[in-house]
Amino acid sequence: MSMFSAVEVIATKRDGGVLSEAAIGWVIDAYTRGQVAEEQMAALAMAVWLNGMTVAETASWTRAMIDSGQRLDLSEVGKPLVDKHSTGGVGDKITLPLAPLVAACGAAVPQLSGRGLGHTGGTLDKLESIPGWRAALSTAEITAQLRAVGAVICATTPTLAPADRKLYALRDVTATVESVPLIASSIMSKKIAEGTDALVLDVKVGSGAFMRTTARARELAQALVGIGAEHGVRTTALLTAMDTPLGNTAGNALEVAESLEVLAGEGPPDVVALTVALAREMLAAVGLDAVDPADALADGRAMDVWRAMIGAQGGDPDAALPVAREVHTVVAPVTGTLSRLDAYAVGVAAWRLGAGRARKEQAVSAGAGVVWHARPGQTVLRGQPLLDLHTDEPERIPGALQALAGGWEIGGEWAGLPLVIEKITG
Amino acid sequence: MSMFSAVEVIATKRDGGVLSEAAIGWVIDAYTRGQVAEEQMAALAMAVWLNGMTVAETASWTRAMIDSGQRLDLSEVGKPLVDKHSTGGVGDKITLPLAPLVAACGAAVPQLSGRGLGHTGGTLDKLESIPGWRAALSTAEITAQLRAVGAVICATTPTLAPADRKLYALRDVTATVESVPLIASSIMSKKIAEGTDALVLDVKVGSGAFMRTTARARELAQALVGIGAEHGVRTTALLTAMDTPLGNTAGNALEVAESLEVLAGEGPPDVVALTVALAREMLAAVGLDAVDPADALADGRAMDVWRAMIGAQGGDPDAALPVAREVHTVVAPVTGTLSRLDAYAVGVAAWRLGAGRARKEQAVSAGAGVVWHARPGQTVLRGQPLLDLHTDEPERIPGALQALAGGWEIGGEWAGLPLVIEKITG
Repeated sequence: MSMFSAVEVIATKRDGGVLSEAAIGWVIDAYTRGQVAEEQMAALAMAVWLNGMTVAETASWTRAMIDSGQRLDLSEVGKPLVDKHSTGGVGDKITLPLAPLVAACGAAVPQLSGRGLGHTGGTLDKLESIPGWRAALSTAEITAQLRAVGAVICATTPTLAPADRKLYALRDVTATVESVPLIASSIMSKKIAEGTDALVLDVKVGSGAFMRTTARARELAQALVGIGAEHGVRTTALLTAMDTPLGNTAGNALEVAESLEVLAGEGPPDVVALTVALAREMLAAVGLDAVDPADALADGRAMDVWRAMIGAQGGDPDAALPVAREVHTVVAPVTGTLSRLDAYAVGVAAWRLGAGRARKEQAVSAGAGVVWHARPGQTVLRGQPLLDLHTDEPERIPGALQALAGGWEIGGEWAGLPLVIEKITG
Repeated sequence: MSMFSAVEVIATKRDGGVLSEAAIGWVIDAYTRGQVAEEQMAALAMAVWLNGMTVAETASWTRAMIDSGQRLDLSEVGKPLVDKHSTGGVGDKITLPLAPLVAACGAAVPQLSGRGLGHTGGTLDKLESIPGWRAALSTAEITAQLRAVGAVICATTPTLAPADRKLYALRDVTATVESVPLIASSIMSKKIAEGTDALVLDVKVGSGAFMRTTARARELAQALVGIGAEHGVRTTALLTAMDTPLGNTAGNALEVAESLEVLAGEGPPDVVALTVALAREMLAAVGLDAVDPADALADGRAMDVWRAMIGAQGGDPDAALPVAREVHTVVAPVTGTLSRLDAYAVGVAAWRLGAGRARKEQAVSAGAGVVWHARPGQTVLRGQPLLDLHTDEPERIPGALQALAGGWEIGGEWAGLPLVIEKITG
């Protein structure tokens, strides 16, 4: 018989108490094995949502989720391992150019990713728009590719923190997603189990992000960095802007195309700047400070790694990308400065056009999404295209237009967040 | 498609918002039909536990639970209908003499009851120790017995507030039982659906009760009376003492035997006093103020109704009651005043001896329980029996003794609660 009862663990957290490492270890393990019921974990998650967890509890929770599965062993790779995680944004294709760029500078990047849910896109969904590319790799394939190419972007393996997968699905239906300790332990359990030496976190702030305010984002970043330190993973976080979407596109194939521009030494300045800033942090975290990632973008080395990385996973880097069957254009009604383009509005519009999903079993459209012809602060001309809505199903356009209504403004000054707001270290 | 989503309803309550009558009606109905999942209701129940519900929300919640099933139609009974509900105590056998007593005074008492769970006994469990007696009656049988005899104590029918049954089972495993709005709506949904005209609530206060303090009990009583008023049921509440157990016995057959003493015009003075006090409130609530229930106890009319009531449900009122196979006696170690006998300690001891259950599918022992030979304030003599532990399984005795350790004290003054603490009306 166990020393613990689910009802007592729930009641302790309900009453504002602190759970011991043993109690947390027991409840996560019993939940993973189906001995603590979904409804009991739901009640506990709500109590955590409302009463919080201490730093020590969050570290125990993370450890228990790691221990629910197997850690990846990447000791055979033979290069310093560094990964990056974004808390999710609109038009956030940074992982696509970043992983090959950092690999081109000498580190190995084991980027195990998830799929998109809701208004933010998923890295795997974007890459799956490349003909032939496959997300599922075995541990042996991941190791081999990291040795040969230096970068892998693939699906998380089923044995990696299974408690997190089960708990995330539960939180999604019980309004217990947006809790700092639960978000932090979810992110860090997967990244620590993945076996990386160092980790750089891109914590998004603004309307299109999980964390709407800098204060909330800072709280999450500190929790993440703290857990990393507890587990011996060198962890740094940048708080970055997500009041307006990144680059000029939100969608799957649309964002791959924009990433290729960045890898070709061009692309939208904000995407280039954030990619380089994150690459510098990642390289510094594994002692490769002497390398300038901007050079590796300019001279084509990052593009070479990209081509090898896509090819190693069955993708054809030269294949034409899918395009949507319909494009609906919104023109600028007046001439003036684009003073606002709301990240959340654009994200919901892209989602409604078919780029995202509401349930994890749904398919996404490769070609769907939104293209904006100006970024906040730029001038637009009356009658010129402002937004293009790409979709395979024209009946989706009214919903996307509704999401965008009030989401942009012409006239006045742009007062957005700086691209990189602040840096949080251990 | 529904106007509501479970996640949005949960998030509203999580964030301290107020749920509309329509939202509550939807979520209770969808939960009853299995379209809102157990884990979603668990998260909502925890959010209610921590953030509370307004009077209006609690009334809506109650209405939705009533509407999840069918109301009993007792219009054919032809007498004023009045019921009593106790929030549960140790040695609380009051319903047994009370229902026939009030019937003997001219009202009809439709007492639909539940079984015991945990340290407080259940009325049905007690009556089932009478050979032949059966708890399950049809609506036609209930009506016929109320017309002929005036009192029915039976199991709730399956169509009465099924949402409450489902929700109670969920709350039991998710540490969400002790919430005033959830307790109040649970009690009142069943009592209102039962079709009574008036209701008297016995809200227990003290260590053996749900509500440990007078302030918490008053809060619950006010919530209950408020819901009664909203639904047109004349409702009064008495806050009564549960710091020490009622009478001299806690168990099933043991409490039936003690109730028979009360019906015979004798019995422990506290049980008699509380039975008469509650009977007066019940009779006053249906305009039968002129009748003195003390007379109906003294002259045997209440006993006549008891015999008819038990007989109508197949029970033999003259049959010998079951007795336990083993009795273990604790003797008074010194001579002095019994200054404390803790209700919770006695309740847990009786439960562990076999009188109660931890899970609703468990059986109870008819003979098991605790008998105390003195009540607080009385003198005990060194070497005389203080407590008798009755059980069929002697291996249960050590656990019961452990529950009683520190639960009683000889020497000093008794400073207990008054039997009736206060009265709450609409």
